[in-house]
Parts: sequence; structure tokens; C-alpha cells
Amino acid sequence: MAEKDKVTIYDISKKLNISAATVSRALNNNPKISQKTKELVMKTAAKMNYKQNKLAQALKSGKTHNVGVIVPYINRNFFSSVIRGIEEELSPHGYHVIICQSHEDVNNEIKQIDTLLNTQIDGIFMSVAKTTQDTDHIEKVLKENTPLVFFDRKKDVTGLSSVTIDDFRGGYLATEHLIKQGCKKIAHFSGDLNLEIYKNRHEGYIAAMKDYGIEPIKEFSLQVNSKLESGASAIQDLWSEDEKPDAIFSASDYAALGAIQELKKMGVKIPEEVCVVGFSNEPFTKYMELPITSVDQTPVEMGRNAAKVFLEQIEGSKTLTIEKKVVLAPELYIRDSSNRNL
Amino acid sequence: MAEKDKVTIYDISKKLNISAATVSRALNNNPKISQKTKELVMKTAAKMNYKQNKLAQALKSGKTHNVGVIVPYINRNFFSSVIRGIEEELSPHGYHVIICQSHEDVNNEIKQIDTLLNTQIDGIFMSVAKTTQDTDHIEKVLKENTPLVFFDRKKDVTGLSSVTIDDFRGGYLATEHLIKQGCKKIAHFSGDLNLEIYKNRHEGYIAAMKDYGIEPIKEFSLQVNSKLESGASAIQDLWSEDEKPDAIFSASDYAALGAIQELKKMGVKIPEEVCVVGFSNEPFTKYMELPITSVDQTPVEMGRNAAKVFLEQIEGSKTLTIEKKVVLAPELYIRDSSNRNL
Repeated sequence: MAEKDKVTIYDISKKLNISAATVSRALNNNPKISQKTKELVMKTAAKMNYKQNKLAQALKSGKTHNVGVIVPYINRNFFSSVIRGIEEELSPHGYHVIICQSHEDVNNEIKQIDTLLNTQIDGIFMSVAKTTQDTDHIEKVLKENTPLVFFDRKKDVTGLSSVTIDDFRGGYLATEHLIKQGCKKIAHFSGDLNLEIYKNRHEGYIAAMKDYGIEPIKEFSLQVNSKLESGASAIQDLWSEDEKPDAIFSASDYAALGAIQELKKMGVKIPEEVCVVGFSNEPFTKYMELPITSVDQTPVEMGRNAAKVFLEQIEGSKTLTIEKKVVLAPELYIRDSSNRNL
Repeated sequence: MAEKDKVTIYDISKKLNISAATVSRALNNNPKISQKTKELVMKTAAKMNYKQNKLAQALKSGKTHNVGVIVPYINRNFFSSVIRGIEEELSPHGYHVIICQSHEDVNNEIKQIDTLLNTQIDGIFMSVAKTTQDTDHIEKVLKENTPLVFFDRKKDVTGLSSVTIDDFRGGYLATEHLIKQGCKKIAHFSGDLNLEIYKNRHEGYIAAMKDYGIEPIKEFSLQVNSKLESGASAIQDLWSEDEKPDAIFSASDYAALGAIQELKKMGVKIPEEVCVVGFSNEPFTKYMELPITSVDQTPVEMGRNAAKVFLEQIEGSKTLTIEKKVVLAPELYIRDSSNRNL
């Protein structure tokens, strides 16, 4: 298109008989402009083939109003709910969210951070992959003066903020609840103990046992993947021994469900003989005919808080580094899989 | 950093004692380079603070190797599985996937297409929002010569390819199965009939009934949202009448689950008195104590096929427009909610 044909906001303002300032605000998703006007302006702009010079705009304001989110998987309710929280908080400020999934592979993370930095996002939200040890790619973001906020799974990098839940407390709450149901031989299915979240849940379990004067049985602590099959096979292992647990506290809902299915197959009564508690409060836990007790990680709150930390940083001084650690309290949802109505 | 300090691939090649060509291939995720070498090169590049000049690279090859995917929601198994299929197919070709969710709002779609075009992605995969009527924003992508492939929910735009499933056949299969279980008064919970997919499932239901000589009862066709509560309240409505259905074919698994929960509350036996079939084969359908029969939309296959269509377009001539319509066959998974073992 020749330069003289270039459509400007003044052409749109003339066409719609509204001020150019209103057109500009509508195009930038300013919360002061009504939804109806925004739709009208955007449709008209699209019809007239109007192009905002995003790069010039970004250079002027220093902002693209895009942020990136990197999660291990999008198809876990926990992660998709955190993303919802981030979007709910940032959308009124005109930000758009771009999502990448690492599939738990640090090499994907490295590439995605490059991609996001190259597309000039204003910030990155991240929950690290299980395989992430080195933090060079994360420090690179710091060097570029781009705010990065960790949520749930973090790395200790000076200058970076994080929003997590108190996983120790989550593990403690779940175990204490089982003890109060009369359980003494409580087994724990932890995830990979190299990940801080699983280590903390495990420590919460140990601490609760000791607080109530119960010595944890070493053979009852198993590293179990977050999968149905893994939960089922852990039950097979435990039940092949003479001494059997009277409760399972699983650090994952999926392994908890696998355990329940396997116990039922063996004719073990839940919660009468064995109580089961999961972690994450995945939606299916409440759909089941035997709803599963689980620890809720308040993911939407987590996302909202991460977004607030980001906004504070971006609105603050460029030279001031804010390092903020927000820790949210988990909540236990008691359901039939562990409720003996005592 | 001063120009003379700029790290090049030759510095990395020297450091690792491998050829610059290997470094370059590793950095561009060439499938011929081993995973081990890629990791080593990427870590070293990050440590040396090497920056690929992505823009120069993109101008040279005309490619950024990023693609965008726009879906209504990421937290539906169907959509996250399609994305997995796209990633599985494109990843060996060195492509990265950026995800945006429209939350069923066409205004988000408009903004996201702008964002993606501004970040110079090589292509867009898209399943349109329920509220999308106008296609101006979609035609804009065509004008920019960026390939766009629809999946599942499409709009008829000349020049654009799509990968869908045969929803008519899905509706037909589900209904035919219910008829073969001895059901005659089959109710249908459709979604919003303005969306082609729901219209086609509904037509498949009608066609199967007529083929088997059963006149569909008009009052038994209800528009029900894809939510548990909506399925439950539809059952309440139907059971407040004298003539009650002996089967429910729901175009959504969530509404099917809500229906099952409500029927159980009322003491109705499933599948003896009423058979229930859902649609989408969400993972929870098989987790339930009463597993739910459902129509599988082969989402991973859908994603893989959409990616293949994109690769054909991008590898083809720039001046040649390919318009390809791929239609996949759905599969019925028969489970206890409708299996009378006849």
C-alpha cells in the first residue's frame, strides 16, 4: 500500500464521528472505554485495514503489553487456573498473555525464553520444569531487565520474585487430618523429591506425624509419579508386604485416584479400612462417586498475586529491583475418601 | 556490550571444539543433531551470553519458526490435546508454539491475531470463539500471506484450510448405538446450534432416528451448555413432564456427567432405565465408577493433521494458495453408562 493510502486513527475517528483520542484508547484496550465502543472501533479498524505501528508504539512507551507464561503443561487444572488468574488481573490493564509449555524439558524452556525475549514481551511468568537445574537462561532474563515472576515451582535466583503456596503446611494439614480420623500407619506418595514443592509436602507429613507422637515408617514413603498407573502400582507394592498402611497421603491427585481404583479392586473399604487424601484439588476429585479429599493450592489467587507483583515491578522505577516472596495458605477440602465422620 | 565483544557461533565452536555448522544446526534445533549436543551447545551459548540475531535470521529465511495457536480455552482436554498434536508434528521441524486463549470472545481473537502478526509468526492455528461472526480479522491474516489453518471450529473463508471431524457422523454413531441398546425416546442435549459442530451433531442424531424409523420428539431436543449444572437442570426440566426419555445423547461430556449425577439423585438406574452418551471423550469419562460412553474426536490426530497442512503450505510456493479440507472420522467408546450388554 502506498504511503498516501495509509489509514490513520483520524480516518477511523472521522468515519465513526468520535474523537481520535477515543479511537486510540479503544485500540489500546483502555478500561475507561466501553466494550461496545471498543468492538465498534476494532471492527472498523479491521475493515479499513488499519495497522498500528506496534514497534514505534513500543519504542515510545517501552511496552508491548504482551506478557509470556511458561508452564510445564497446560492440561493440568492447576496450571490453567493460574493462567486464568494472571489474565483476570492483567486484562483490565490492557495486557495480553502468550502461553508456552515446556513439557518438563529445560531445553524447551531455554528456547521459549529466547522466543519471548525476541518478541519483546514486557514480562515473564514461569513455573520451572522438573529437569531445570542450571539457571543461566533465567538469569539472562534478569540481564535484559525484563521482570520475571516465578509461581509454584521456583528457583532461588537473587532479584527474582515468586508466588508459591506453603507446601509444608499443605502436607501437614493433610497428615494431621488423617491422624484425627484415627489413622496411624500413614503412607506418603511423594513426587520427585528434587523438586522443592514435593520435598516440602514430604517434610510437612513427617512433622505432623512427629507432632502427634507417631514414628513414620520409612518403607511407607514412596516416590510416585503423578499418574494413575503409578498410584496403582505403589498400592500393589505396599500390599505385597505384611504390614499395610491404614491411610495414603498422595502429593498428587492422579496417583491418589490410581490408588483408590486399585484398593477397590482388592476389596479394601474406603474410608473405613484405608483413608486417601490427594493434592491439587483437580476438578475430577469432586466429580467422583467417592469424592476425594484434597489440598487446594488456590491457583487463581496464585495467578492474581503473581500478576500484582509484576504490575508493581513494571510500574516501579527501572533502576529499582523488587524481590518479593508471596506465600499463600493452602486449604484442605475434606471429602468422602477420608471422612469417617468422627 | 561493545561490538568487538560480540559472541559469534565461531566462539562457541572453538570453545566446544566442534564445527560452526554443527553449532548453527544445534541452535536451530535441526533434527540431525543429537539431543546431547543440542543441550551442550545451548548451555554454552547461554553461558557466553550469545545472541542469535533472530530478526536478521528471519529476514534471510523469511521464517521465525514460531507459530501461534488460538483456542477458546486451554483447560479442555480436547484443545490441549490438539495443541499437543501440533507440537509433536512441528517440533522436529524446529518450530515453537505460542498459545493464546480467546475465552470465547471475538475481541480477544482480534487482538491476539494482531499480537501474533506483530511478533511475525510463520502461521496461525485457530479454533474460533462462539461469538465470532465477522471474519474481517481472519481475512487480515490471509492478506498478510500468513498461513492460517482452522481446526474443529471453522469459518468458511476462501483460501483457508481446515481440519475437522465429521460431527454429523459422531452424532449418528452415538444415536445409532443408543437405538441398538433398545432406546426409542432419545433426548439430545445440543450445544449452541449457531456453531457448525453442534448443528452437525444434532443433524446426525435426527438422521439416525429417521433411518431407524423413529420420529424424534421435538421437546426432547434441548440446547444445553457444556456445564455440569446445565446437564442437571435439563434433566429436571425433562423429568417434570409426563413423557420421559429413555436415553440422553449429550453433545458435551460435562452436561452428560451433570445428567448422570441428577438421574442418580432421583434414583433412576443407568443404563437399565436410561442410557447416557457424551461427546469429546474427556479423561474423566473413563475415570468414573460408572464410566461414560463418549465420542472421541481424535484431537492429537487433528493437531498433527493441521500441522501437516501448515507444513505443506509453508514449504510450497508463496504464490500458490492451498485450500485443503481434512475431515477425520470420530470414534465411539462404549462404556457402562450406555452398555446393556445386549
